[in-house]
Order: sequence, then C-alpha cells, then structure tokens
Amino acid sequence: MPNLKDVAKKAGLSINTVSRVLNNRGYISEKTREKVYRVMKEMNYQPNEMARALFRKRSNMIGLIIPTISHPFFAELTYYLEYYADHKGYKLLLCNSNRNVSKEVEYIEMLKKNQVDAIIMGSAVLDVQHYLHLDLPIVSFDRVISEDIPVVTSNNLEGGKLAARLLINKGCLHPVFIFRGIDGPQHRSMLAGQRRQGYEAEVESAGMEPLQLQLDAEGSKHIENNAAIIAYFQEHPEIDGVFASSDVIAAEVIHACYLLKKDIPSEIKIVGYDDVQIASLISPRLSTVRQPIQEMSDSIIQLVVKQIEGKEVSMVNTFPVTLVERGTT
Amino acid sequence: MPNLKDVAKKAGLSINTVSRVLNNRGYISEKTREKVYRVMKEMNYQPNEMARALFRKRSNMIGLIIPTISHPFFAELTYYLEYYADHKGYKLLLCNSNRNVSKEVEYIEMLKKNQVDAIIMGSAVLDVQHYLHLDLPIVSFDRVISEDIPVVTSNNLEGGKLAARLLINKGCLHPVFIFRGIDGPQHRSMLAGQRRQGYEAEVESAGMEPLQLQLDAEGSKHIENNAAIIAYFQEHPEIDGVFASSDVIAAEVIHACYLLKKDIPSEIKIVGYDDVQIASLISPRLSTVRQPIQEMSDSIIQLVVKQIEGKEVSMVNTFPVTLVERGTT
Repeated sequence: MPNLKDVAKKAGLSINTVSRVLNNRGYISEKTREKVYRVMKEMNYQPNEMARALFRKRSNMIGLIIPTISHPFFAELTYYLEYYADHKGYKLLLCNSNRNVSKEVEYIEMLKKNQVDAIIMGSAVLDVQHYLHLDLPIVSFDRVISEDIPVVTSNNLEGGKLAARLLINKGCLHPVFIFRGIDGPQHRSMLAGQRRQGYEAEVESAGMEPLQLQLDAEGSKHIENNAAIIAYFQEHPEIDGVFASSDVIAAEVIHACYLLKKDIPSEIKIVGYDDVQIASLISPRLSTVRQPIQEMSDSIIQLVVKQIEGKEVSMVNTFPVTLVERGTT
Repeated sequence: MPNLKDVAKKAGLSINTVSRVLNNRGYISEKTREKVYRVMKEMNYQPNEMARALFRKRSNMIGLIIPTISHPFFAELTYYLEYYADHKGYKLLLCNSNRNVSKEVEYIEMLKKNQVDAIIMGSAVLDVQHYLHLDLPIVSFDRVISEDIPVVTSNNLEGGKLAARLLINKGCLHPVFIFRGIDGPQHRSMLAGQRRQGYEAEVESAGMEPLQLQLDAEGSKHIENNAAIIAYFQEHPEIDGVFASSDVIAAEVIHACYLLKKDIPSEIKIVGYDDVQIASLISPRLSTVRQPIQEMSDSIIQLVVKQIEGKEVSMVNTFPVTLVERGTT
C-alpha cells in the first residue's frame, strides 16, 4: 500500500508539502493542491484516520452538548463559550441533551455528519467508549472521560471545603449538604461529586457528622424540591447550616426558610455554588463558591482550537474557586 | 438567455431531472449531477433568485441572534427553540449580539457566508433596510421589521393592563412602572414598549397618575440598578406597587424592598413579566405576567420551516399572556 512518501515522490513534491495539503495548513497553490489530490487518487492512497480527519475541510463550527441551556450555570457558560469561539472565528452549534443517553448519541451522530471541527461535551452521560471512537477533537467539561481527552473543571474538592469551613467558622453545628441526584455518589466520574467529598472531609475534621439531603435529579420541579427541603427541616430542627451544590438549589433552600420563618442568617446559614446571576438577585444575597466561568470558557475554547490545529494540550485543567460572602452567612 | 428547458435539452435530460438537481431533491447520480452543472456552466445559465436559492445545498442550520443567552428569558426561549428545531431536523447556530449594532452586522454576514437556511432575529437593533436585502427567510421576535417579515410576540399591551389592574385591585394607589432603557420610548419598534402603554392606559382609566422609573440599559449591573431603585423609593415613600418590565427587574425590586425593610405584599406589591424560572425561585414567589415561551418557540420554528419550504406564513403572530398570582401581590 502506498504511503505519504510514495505520494510525494510521484507528485515530485516534498513530504512536507504533501503533509501541508493534507493538514490544510499554510499557503498552498491551487495547482499544487490539485496535483496532490490527483496523485493520491491515481495511487489509490488511503490516508490513515488522522490524515482523513485533516483531509476534511474545516467547517469552523463547534458542537456544544450541555444538559440544558435553561439552567443559569450553563446559560452563563454558553454565553462566554460563544464569546470566545466567535473571537477565534468559530460558531457554536447548540445541543440540549437533558442528560438523556439516546439524545446524546443522536447529537453526536448529527454533529459528526455536519462535520463540526470539534465537540465540547458538557453532558457526558455515555460510557467512555462512545467518546473514544469519535475521530474528532473533544473537550470535556467537569468529567474525566479518558486520559486522551482534555477536561476543564474547577477545584470542586476545595470548593466543598471552603463552603463547609465558612459554615463551621460562623458557628454552625449541624451543617447539611443538599444536592441533586446527578451530583451524587452514583455519578462518581462527575467531578462535581467532589464538592460533597470536600464538605465531608471538612465537617469530619471539625468533629461533626456529615449530613446530606438528595433532591430529585429533575431540574425544574421547584415545588417538589421545596417540599423535600421543608420536610427535611421539619424532621431535623437542629439544622443550622446548608451547603447547596448549586445557587439554584440554594435559592430553593432560601424559599423553604422563608416559608418556615427561619431567619437567615441568624437561625440558619446558607452557602451556594457557582456564583451565577441569581446569587446576586435573591434576598438575602447568597454567599457562594464562585467558579470562574469566564476563564473556564476561555480555556475550553483554547483547548478546542489547539486540538483542531494539531497542537499539544494539557489534559487536566482545574481552575481555582473563591468564596464570596454575602447576606446568607 | 438560456432557460431550464434549454439546459435540459442540451444535457439530454428531462426538465424534471434538471429541476431535481437544482432542488437537490430525490436521488440523483453523481454523474448526472456533474453533467447538469457542466452544461449550465457551458451555456452560462443564470438561475433566477428562486432557482439560486434552491441551488444552494440546504445546511439545515438556523442562525439565532439574541441579545444574550445569559438572560433567563432568552435562555428559556433558546432552550425551546433548540427543542423544536431539533424535532424538525434543524440545528441552531447561537449568536449573542449584546444589542450591539456592529456585532449584529457581523453575525448576519457570517450567517450568510455559512449558508444557514434562515435567521431568527431576537435582537433587531439595525435599520430596517439591513434585513430587507438578506435573501434569507427571517422570523423576527418581538419587533416588527417590515410587512414581509413574520413576527412572533406576546400581547404586551394586554400584559401591561393585566399587571396594572392587579395592582389597582389589590389597593395600590401609587403603582410605578420600572423598566430598562431598551424597553423605553426610544425603542418604539420593540413591542415590549407596549407593556408600558398598557400600564399607563389602565392606571389613567382608574384616575391615577402613571409613574415610571427607567433603569440603565446594561443587563448585569445589579448593584447600580439596586441603588437607583432604593433612591427612587426613598424619594417617593408613597409608592405602594411596582410593575417591573421583567422578572429579573422584579427580583431587583424585591431586594431593594428587603434592604429598606418594606414588607411585601403588605406595604408594597410587585408584579413581574415573563414568568421565567427565577419567578418561582425567589422569596416571596413573584406574581407575574406569563409569556407562553414554549408555544412561542414552537411557532417561531414553524414559521422558519414553512418559509424554507416556500409555504405561506401569517405575518403577525401574537400570543396571549396570563396573570400568575403568587406571593408578591
């Protein structure tokens, strides 16, 4: 079977030039390009997977798969992803998976067919092998898929510790961690689960018992979540602190306290996670662990573009989190 | 000048076959397709506008231009737009314009180059003529661009009336309309401005004086908006009702009341607009005018697809709004 060298020899060009044609990189005259393609065809040259991927014309489109754009965290992340992608000449194709496995498979197939240049995977619910045969650059958000796929995340373990430490320092004796199903132990590969581990480590080291309340994984059933939180508070009147795994959940906790007439922060203190817009909108304003959404989005796009350009990338990109103290602690 | 019939004759094919090549419809062998293109080139055949549009391969992509995906209203609208677009086999290319004129021009040029099949315009800040020469199906959201471009909106006038009537019926004597610059009188073509007109009509017919407070048009400066609202309440201690032009602004009003220790709803009543997630998350839960975001999104996608398929569409599509009473009134 002919290889790249044979093609170069027959075309009377350097290997470097043929490679540049395949890579679609640097200036190549139309004449040279046509010659390379003609010779490859004549020799029935079969480029390998890598060469085939490079062979494709770039679409300058990036597929973005997230659980749902209607969640404030993903809305803000997507806002910045679009900003940085546009800056680099790329457009975003938006896909809401609702963390549905078959929807995610469909989207991946659709994106491949549409020849996006890369996929940003913010909703990785499939088994690892689905991503390994994609033949496309991927950047994963908040989940380690494999050693070959770069991941962008924030320091969730430290975030959990910061939140628990703030509650303890403010005098809480019975702080509870409230989270949705998706952040729970059954999704170990989701890095957000480390928030819980950070909370537990900090609470245990203060000689207290870690407590947890798991809400339904569904995103929009505020009324049910609220009933669950109220029931928990009624069964456990000693609870004097809450670390919520997102600002949206923290808002639900604040509403439960409002209905139970528990004063915030004198009777109960609350810390959220993310620092999205809602944290600065609700009353009292929410103390929270801030993820640097803008910087993380910038990094995701840089990792996408570097991979498309065949450059080396760092595989694990963990961003620091910071504690933002407001009215709930 | 040669026409389709001449091309078919010279190529030795039926008019139907040539038409199918132009329409990119049904199975056509690569050989036939090439022959048609070659003959058209030889004869210097100039397809008319319609034929040219059909000539283009469909991309099954729709460009979506909105002010910003980070605003809860547009996040929910986009969620449903993507849902219905996906259902019809279309993908959304997301563009955040930040209501910036040059950004909007850039996006339109980019979308044309990428041969999207249509544009959904949720951020129309340009002069009308920019949209008229697009040679692409457009659906406008909340702004009448021209008689030829279908618009989807909700009954903003009725929404303003419903909000004002609720405040008046609950006993408010000095209800104020609080809005952002973009909803104000200087943007008459934005249909959201009719919310103010509805409020004014209702307040005047009750023999009261319409009052208004205009906030900065910037979306994210909650602290400045809050200072403006607090200052207004301090200057006007008689204010006992607020109609906010969005739920996000209503949340800012609630926070101002929290800081001023004004009890809601006994001392002041508040009505928002949109009924996005935040209305059900804040405490007390927000009474608001509900826009049927899901139904409007469905309609937008239907109007897009009908236009792509060359079908007739209705030009003004106004959806009814409903009053949702919760804890703030």
